[in-house]
Formats: sequence, structure tokens, C-alpha cells
Amino acid sequence: MGITEEVLRASRQHAADFDLKTLSTAPAPRLAVLACMDSRLTVEQILGLRIGEAHIIRNAGGIATEDALRSLIISHHVMGTQEFMVINHTDCGMLRFEDADLSRRLREQTGEPSATPAHFHAFKDLKSNLLQQVARIRSHPYLRNISTRGFIYDVKIGTLEEVIADAAHREQQSA
Amino acid sequence: MGITEEVLRASRQHAADFDLKTLSTAPAPRLAVLACMDSRLTVEQILGLRIGEAHIIRNAGGIATEDALRSLIISHHVMGTQEFMVINHTDCGMLRFEDADLSRRLREQTGEPSATPAHFHAFKDLKSNLLQQVARIRSHPYLRNISTRGFIYDVKIGTLEEVIADAAHREQQSA
Repeated sequence: MGITEEVLRASRQHAADFDLKTLSTAPAPRLAVLACMDSRLTVEQILGLRIGEAHIIRNAGGIATEDALRSLIISHHVMGTQEFMVINHTDCGMLRFEDADLSRRLREQTGEPSATPAHFHAFKDLKSNLLQQVARIRSHPYLRNISTRGFIYDVKIGTLEEVIADAAHREQQSA
Repeated sequence: MGITEEVLRASRQHAADFDLKTLSTAPAPRLAVLACMDSRLTVEQILGLRIGEAHIIRNAGGIATEDALRSLIISHHVMGTQEFMVINHTDCGMLRFEDADLSRRLREQTGEPSATPAHFHAFKDLKSNLLQQVARIRSHPYLRNISTRGFIYDVKIGTLEEVIADAAHREQQSA
């Protein structure tokens, strides 16, 4: 049995157990979280989020791409969230390959010239990557007034640590 | 107290309760899910996913943007997932505004000409939107061999229903 069939079976149990009251008492979301797609980063569980509490935006690496910025703009300006968190994590798959190598392999395997996406956003330094994403959000003209903080989740021990830009990082980013 | 501080408190409890055994026995993820960022769409809970089982990609609307395609390509070609699910949901916020109106409001409120993003991807028909995203993934040259199925989650009753393109939709999409 494929994994999709397995999870569909679980979803029927979810529907059977579904409690309407959970929803009707849920407040409007106040928080948006941008995180990596990694299978060990169970965002709602890590943050103790209940249904209705936060928008969750996820992609490979937890990168503030144009699409993530689109989602954050909608989250704040259409849905009213007031705080953002960006979560990267240790042992991220994006640290283990390079954009150029992956592009070449895909072209060779498929015989198709690479088109979309323009970049894979692999990175070499977790902390720098995180700070770059936080800076990108903070400097977007439509997102300047929102509290945006960056965190690294340790997949081995389950802790979430805030990362704050030091002077060297700030200089690098404004250069 | 801000919501970020509230969830950070919860994350400390998560770290205290963290069980290493959960992770060391986790298999490599076989599934990638693309879903909306909506706060009521608790993807892991709906699908009964355990830690380590699936990549979760989420954005406003559950749209197969260039960034979502990037994440799916990495998920399959770098991390080895073999099946994809796309989940849209009833009462989606993306049905309640129009791209042009939001762009105009943001320009007026901030005094900044719109730059990023080029599109907000608001939509008018949930089923058509979903089928369009599934078709976009299936037709990507790097993602053609992967099982990709589309579903609508009903936020009022907790059910997940598969949506399959009928002849009219297929014709529309190949036009």
C-alpha cells in the first residue's frame, strides 16, 4: 500500500474524531511561522500551537523566497497576523548539496534543460542563512512594522534557540 | 505577552518532553504534502503523520508556485520521496480577495510601488484551483514520474475528499 493510501486511512479517523467546538472557539491567528519542510520539524507540536492559532508557511530550507513573502504579506495584510517567526534547523538537507550540482544532475537525468526554479537555495552556513531570511522579511516594504524573529531548532534534542544578528552580520547584510 | 513569547514557553516544554527514540526509529520520508498555510489545516494531525514521515510544504492557497516546485524537486530528487499530495480547503481566505485590490491597497497604505510578489494567486473556484496546481506539478519536466493527487479538506467537518479532473477540466488545462 502506498503512503498516500495509508495517510488517507488516518484522515478518515481524523474526520470521525473531529470536534466542531475546537474551531468555533478558535481566535483569529496572530502569528505566522516560516519554517523548513523537514519531516522532523513538527511546527505545531514544537510551538504548542492549537488549531486556528497560526499560519504555517514551509518550504525547502525555510527561505524567505518571493512566495514566502507573498504568503506573509497576505497573512498580515489580509488576515491580520502581527508577529512572524522564522525557523531553520540543525542537520538541514539544504546544507548537503549545491545548487549547480543538482541542476546538472537533473538536466542529465531528464534530458530537459533547467527552467524552473531559477535557484534551489542550498546554503553552507545555517546561522547566516537564517539571519539572511529574517533580514529579507524585515526589509520588505510591506512588512517593515512586524516583529520578525529567527530561531534554530535542534532536531537531536528538541530545543529552539533564538539567533540575533551581531554587528558583523548586520554590516554584511547592509553591504 | 506577545504570541511569540507564548509559543516559546511551549517550545521549552516540548524540549523537556523530547524523546530521542522517536527520531532514531523514524524512516526516511516517502511523502511530500503541499498545503495551504491556513491555521485550521493541521496537516500532520489530519493525515496522522508521525515525526519523520513527510515533507510539508505550505503557502497561501496551497499553490504550486516556483518555490513549491523547487521544494518538491528537492524532496524527490535529493531526499527520495515518492508520492505527493496537494491539499486545498473550504473557506479559504484566497477566495475572499482579488490580486488587483490587494496590490492597490498595499501601494496606497505604504506609498511603495509594488515589486515582490508579482502575483498573490487569489482564486475564485476552489476545485479548479486545486486541479490547476496538481496539473502544474504533474507536467513539470522533473516531476513527471511521481504520483500526485489532489484533495479538498473541509474545515467545518474535518473530511478530506479527493478531486479528480473530469474531461472538461483536462481539456481546459491542455488548451
